[in-house]
Amino acid sequence: MTVRISPSILAADFTRLADEADAVANDADMLHVDVMDNHFVPNLTVGLPVVESLVKNVRLPLDIHLGVADPDRWAPGYAEAGAGSVTIHAEAANSPVRTLRAIRAAGAQAGLALSPATPLLPYEGLLDEADTLLVMTVEPGFGSQKFLEFTLEKVRQAREAIDALRRVSGRDVPLWLQVDGGVNESTIARCSEAGADSFVAGSAVYAADDPAAAVRALRAKAEDAKFVVAETS
Amino acid sequence: MTVRISPSILAADFTRLADEADAVANDADMLHVDVMDNHFVPNLTVGLPVVESLVKNVRLPLDIHLGVADPDRWAPGYAEAGAGSVTIHAEAANSPVRTLRAIRAAGAQAGLALSPATPLLPYEGLLDEADTLLVMTVEPGFGSQKFLEFTLEKVRQAREAIDALRRVSGRDVPLWLQVDGGVNESTIARCSEAGADSFVAGSAVYAADDPAAAVRALRAKAEDAKFVVAETS
Repeated sequence: MTVRISPSILAADFTRLADEADAVANDADMLHVDVMDNHFVPNLTVGLPVVESLVKNVRLPLDIHLGVADPDRWAPGYAEAGAGSVTIHAEAANSPVRTLRAIRAAGAQAGLALSPATPLLPYEGLLDEADTLLVMTVEPGFGSQKFLEFTLEKVRQAREAIDALRRVSGRDVPLWLQVDGGVNESTIARCSEAGADSFVAGSAVYAADDPAAAVRALRAKAEDAKFVVAETS
Repeated sequence: MTVRISPSILAADFTRLADEADAVANDADMLHVDVMDNHFVPNLTVGLPVVESLVKNVRLPLDIHLGVADPDRWAPGYAEAGAGSVTIHAEAANSPVRTLRAIRAAGAQAGLALSPATPLLPYEGLLDEADTLLVMTVEPGFGSQKFLEFTLEKVRQAREAIDALRRVSGRDVPLWLQVDGGVNESTIARCSEAGADSFVAGSAVYAADDPAAAVRALRAKAEDAKFVVAETS
């Protein structure tokens, strides 16, 4: 019944990232870093030099989400820089299997992300190459967007596919089912019920007066929802 | 005999940008921000969300250097966000005149940058549209590169062109001649002698034990070199 909470610095004060990370370091599991390049999405956030500074100065493992064109070229560098996890977009990767393997070979967990309009089915065969499947619950690009309800069906499909993979392959390495976008105290329970166990939250954490308390509240809601599902199923 | 010193955060600790800016706020004229997108150059640094945080939290005017593809699309947003100056690359802009005017219309100074292999001549007619001409003294993309001596000839040409523009047009708005790349205590005097009056310095400032003292030392060397030129010409 373990869940992961990954606060996103997209909603943080970018001039005080060390402090912003410290504020959640005792309560969060990872720190989510949205790398955007103006090309895969119409926004440019932070890239490798910032991640290198974060690796040196932040205690939490970094959860790098590459919203960039040509992730095959760029992803291994983030793993080599010391990220805990590097997630590439299925829509942007030309060679997702090769790139997921390169991320793992460089010592990071490997993630595969699906934008809202991207179906799961073509990628089910790749799941065993990943440590995280990220189902986007908004279009990637900007913080503070409204949760897209229709993506919950894909979360449910993904939960079934992951559980089936475990049964069939006997895989015992974790395969996290992450959601990202519009995740807050009023949407996280539905995501958890649908099967997600890893939660990115930006403004729900960093727009709160007490980011650490916000992380704890999100975790409690996500865990409670799983408990209810377990009790009634 | 005024010169501008613009420390570049490319060499700073990206997790403590507010502190890094404060360290030079009393001595520097602007804070140089390299925006790179993995496309115009093979590096991705920081973009608009970081600049928005900097505008809110930093006293110095921001000197934005757009090392990105399609600056025509992106430049006005940085001016609207409150940057003091926004510089576009001549090689990347499709409509440099329109974009320089859009930057000025949004309230910022407008800059035109030339990479080392880009000649000045095609752009001389545009100079009156700009507040800064940036002659790159390394290839854009990364900090800590070695100064390219051959670019000094372009700095001298640019000084002549700017002085001629002043004489012919009677222009009295400043037109800064900026250099960027490998500028340090041993190269800045040659840049100043060649005619530069605005100096970007990254590792020469932020790798120093005392960044503020490094800024003062750079300024003194740049001003001394101008004094010698004035005395002997």
